Amino acid sequence: MTIYDQVKKFLKTHKRFLIASHINPDGDGIGSTLALGNALEHLGKEVVIFNRDGVPNTLAFLPGASRIVREIPAFEFDAAILADCASPDRAGDHFEQQAASLPKIAIDHHRIDASSVDISCIDETAASTGDVVLRILKKMKVPIGADIAMCIYCTLVVDTGFFRYSNTTEKVLRVAAELVALGANPWTVAKNLEESYPAPRLFLLAKSLVSLKLSADGKFAMMDVTQKMIAETGANIDLSDEFAGIPRTIDSVLISALFREMQSGKIKVSLRSKEDIDVAAIAKQFDGGGHSHAAGCSITGTLEEAKQKIYAIVFQLLKEKKI
Amino acid sequence: MTIYDQVKKFLKTHKRFLIASHINPDGDGIGSTLALGNALEHLGKEVVIFNRDGVPNTLAFLPGASRIVREIPAFEFDAAILADCASPDRAGDHFEQQAASLPKIAIDHHRIDASSVDISCIDETAASTGDVVLRILKKMKVPIGADIAMCIYCTLVVDTGFFRYSNTTEKVLRVAAELVALGANPWTVAKNLEESYPAPRLFLLAKSLVSLKLSADGKFAMMDVTQKMIAETGANIDLSDEFAGIPRTIDSVLISALFREMQSGKIKVSLRSKEDIDVAAIAKQFDGGGHSHAAGCSITGTLEEAKQKIYAIVFQLLKEKKI
Repeated sequence: MTIYDQVKKFLKTHKRFLIASHINPDGDGIGSTLALGNALEHLGKEVVIFNRDGVPNTLAFLPGASRIVREIPAFEFDAAILADCASPDRAGDHFEQQAASLPKIAIDHHRIDASSVDISCIDETAASTGDVVLRILKKMKVPIGADIAMCIYCTLVVDTGFFRYSNTTEKVLRVAAELVALGANPWTVAKNLEESYPAPRLFLLAKSLVSLKLSADGKFAMMDVTQKMIAETGANIDLSDEFAGIPRTIDSVLISALFREMQSGKIKVSLRSKEDIDVAAIAKQFDGGGHSHAAGCSITGTLEEAKQKIYAIVFQLLKEKKI
Repeated sequence: MTIYDQVKKFLKTHKRFLIASHINPDGDGIGSTLALGNALEHLGKEVVIFNRDGVPNTLAFLPGASRIVREIPAFEFDAAILADCASPDRAGDHFEQQAASLPKIAIDHHRIDASSVDISCIDETAASTGDVVLRILKKMKVPIGADIAMCIYCTLVVDTGFFRYSNTTEKVLRVAAELVALGANPWTVAKNLEESYPAPRLFLLAKSLVSLKLSADGKFAMMDVTQKMIAETGANIDLSDEFAGIPRTIDSVLISALFREMQSGKIKVSLRSKEDIDVAAIAKQFDGGGHSHAAGCSITGTLEEAKQKIYAIVFQLLKEKKI
């Protein structure tokens, strides 16, 4: 029995599902839980979709987004589903408690530890968790309407960076085409994801960009987001989540680092790189992690101290690589 | 005989082609001329690819880009091809003179006046001029290798804004999938298009963003690029070509205007809008043009005068629309 067959059996057998994704959710988390919830209702199941932190403003357009609850109602669930995360604690304490005694399934496309669930459907060949959900729904022969297509399309564009990243394969583009044929609207998705930011985001970006500094050889870029900037612009720190990639748009830059002063007092460092430079290895030295070209960590200390620590490692790395 | 059959006949009949695109070229202009040049050589033709302004840095990665010449060599051409423009003068004086006595063909996907060429292959159902070129090559049964696929893929992402705009149809995504299968690499294209900017672009963006102003109701955004900013950052004005879309990322903004002081002394205004607001109608009042959601014009006067003129029209428009 393949893992997809096991999932199919699990979803057919149970009747009242608690579905959740990780805290601080992104488009793949929200899109995949909504697609799944919608599909299970088509099959006559009862469904509650939970997210501890609710739906970000940019994702509120997704069909069904308003039904995602931030409190789990009293209800006799007989199964729980985690999407885009594999560990109940990643969905928050409340979920972890409520789902403790329920049979659990996890659906994801990242290679992660899923030892605390009963069935883990981790498909690393999929571009997004939504793409795994689509494969499950096809296996179950659930009719895929425009609502489900829109949610899954959203997961694809979020996890491929609008079909830019190296996970953009022929297959991904064919799936995207299929979803558009089923009613997903690329412009609606793009407009909502990228043109629904509160104004303080750009005011914050203006200040952050003013802090941009390049090393003398142009290979390393550093940019800041300080609590002072946050206070002056009325932004919140989450609005700078995508700033890390901006310095890498410079041709000479091989490594970039965004340093953010968190309310906790720690400095959150987001690293980006090009070519064969592995920034996950840098992040690991500070108990962080990530991918080769995008990683992050937290450093205790002042902004200047964090910058000196990262700069020293980057300097050494570039020297060793003789680039 | 369909227009595609006429083009096929034209390309089969002639032997020595001068191929050009418009001055100040973009990815569709460069990508479509390269794809066409490459394909015609496969057919044993002799080809010179010309662009008055050469290849922008971000497009230098395209296979064959280094062979695009900025001076037309002495050569006995027997035909000329315009791609992504339909009028010889749009390719520059030199092309216009050299091609004056040659039979000419124009390939495009915009509805434009092509009265000064012999055959105009304008296909508005295509997402890019490169997409029209692909249709021609298929009609001619030219083998499409990785080089040609890469060039055409580039035209698709440029003209659909990485599969964001409303011209992103099921068909476009299927064509993109097909090109990836033939060897186009989405990440190589994205990385070069978006991560190959000279550093002064971000320094200029920092200054330009500081000038960002919103109307009291948040519906109208104005941003500047001044000659002073250009001088202080060492940027050139072309590096701000994509700034116009940035203020529209704010949720409340329905119309945005980027005002750029050109060296000529004129103010170049780039307008962007959302929903049913037609900014081409505003641009037309100043002899400009464009699409409903992206248009532009030039205004004689100071930056402040240009802003007042545009503001007065936008204010009236929003009032009439009662939004």
